[in-house]
Amino acid sequence: MSNPTLAAKANQFLKLHQGPGILVLANVWDVASARIVEHAGFPAIATSSAAVANSLGYPDGQQISRSEMLDVVGRIAAKVSVPVSADLEAGYGESAVEMAGTARALIEAGAVGLNLEDSMEERALIPIEQHVEKVKCIRDTGERMGVHVVINARTDAYLAGIGEPSSRFDHTLERLTAYRKAGADSLFVPGVYDAETIGRLAQAAPGPLNVLANPASPSIQELERLGVRRLSFGSWPARAALGFFARFTRELIEQRTFATLSDWAIPYAEINRLMS
Amino acid sequence: MSNPTLAAKANQFLKLHQGPGILVLANVWDVASARIVEHAGFPAIATSSAAVANSLGYPDGQQISRSEMLDVVGRIAAKVSVPVSADLEAGYGESAVEMAGTARALIEAGAVGLNLEDSMEERALIPIEQHVEKVKCIRDTGERMGVHVVINARTDAYLAGIGEPSSRFDHTLERLTAYRKAGADSLFVPGVYDAETIGRLAQAAPGPLNVLANPASPSIQELERLGVRRLSFGSWPARAALGFFARFTRELIEQRTFATLSDWAIPYAEINRLMS
Repeated sequence: MSNPTLAAKANQFLKLHQGPGILVLANVWDVASARIVEHAGFPAIATSSAAVANSLGYPDGQQISRSEMLDVVGRIAAKVSVPVSADLEAGYGESAVEMAGTARALIEAGAVGLNLEDSMEERALIPIEQHVEKVKCIRDTGERMGVHVVINARTDAYLAGIGEPSSRFDHTLERLTAYRKAGADSLFVPGVYDAETIGRLAQAAPGPLNVLANPASPSIQELERLGVRRLSFGSWPARAALGFFARFTRELIEQRTFATLSDWAIPYAEINRLMS
Repeated sequence: MSNPTLAAKANQFLKLHQGPGILVLANVWDVASARIVEHAGFPAIATSSAAVANSLGYPDGQQISRSEMLDVVGRIAAKVSVPVSADLEAGYGESAVEMAGTARALIEAGAVGLNLEDSMEERALIPIEQHVEKVKCIRDTGERMGVHVVINARTDAYLAGIGEPSSRFDHTLERLTAYRKAGADSLFVPGVYDAETIGRLAQAAPGPLNVLANPASPSIQELERLGVRRLSFGSWPARAALGFFARFTRELIEQRTFATLSDWAIPYAEINRLMS
């Protein structure tokens, strides 16, 4: 894709964060799931890094290489017309310089947005300044290539359970403020599911707030009312589809029947038409 | 994997076709689905070429390249300990010579079995002699590498609706006989779902018969009683899992709720443990 085309898609994706409604993203893991989301009418595609990693045989947590992750992203971007945002974990590197390569590879894959998280290992966040430099470098690299990459800066104090629970709100806000100043377009705080905290975060956040859905989440209407601008699902939909498949495998081996499959399949001709 | 290890796995897979029970294979499309099948207790893994192609962004029907298909097969084989059989469509080539490369690449990917179909285009089968030469070449290449590759020779007179319906049984049997003589270990006839025809085929086939499950199929107990030795599911389970995901996307966009996901997801820790 030409960079002017990608620049237009990046702007189109950025606008989706500016309301009035909440941007809802049904995260995908391969081209088939991405085409299904586009066909359903969603205005953008977002990947789940955990789900892509699992599909390719890795556990979550930067075990997969940048090139393997972006190969999947590139396949998706080549097959959908809506903007594509890639979940790139911590960017597959620790230094700002490495982020230049990541941003370049992202744009070359045809994506116009990314998630960039500030946890590198379980239960530890990288220093604020380090994440700030990474965000800045991605912003600069994108601008030099003519694409305002939509940076969704993620902070994991809640998700990873960093520090005392009472300190997490202020810690999160400090990081969101620094990341926004460094150029982040949206601010992702996974791991908060209660309406009260989400509402306070949405009001205090210096930019559009993205939260992660889970079974305990408030309704979409409530999240919208609280001021959340973006809702994503992470690997939950992929794990649910795999859970459906797992139920089929258990029925098949334990009861020697396959009723689980009844009524669910996309017809062969339809899925192949979606891929054409 | 060393070739002696693969040789042992190939023998192990071959034995599963010799009864007493029917071999039931829940076809997979990526590493996550393969690990789920292994974890459920199945004695072998079989891929669905259509489902792998869809996942990578292609419609079914040899649009995907051999190397892309075998990259997925290799990822799966590296992560499971049971034997892996790859659905390789028509082998990604027309000549016997090309099959030598396909067989070599299959073994190098760590698989010990393959499906090889005799349709190259919709509604046309390649000449019997051509498919016979392809089967022979795969058998010879495997033996030279020390691995008795389990060849599941597929004939598509029923599936593609070739010729008069009344001629299909004899046409199919003629092809099964030639393919078996050329070295095929099992004989795959997709597209037959009525017990009477399946029973006649199973009795007349000169080797273990594989049929494809669909919603109209007889029960597994009935297939076993009819003499079928192998039952596979093709892309049906993958299309059902995608259909489940599609239902979620429609609910999310139309009703702005996500109840479809409730109760189905494999927990995050569990899927990542499966990949470790």
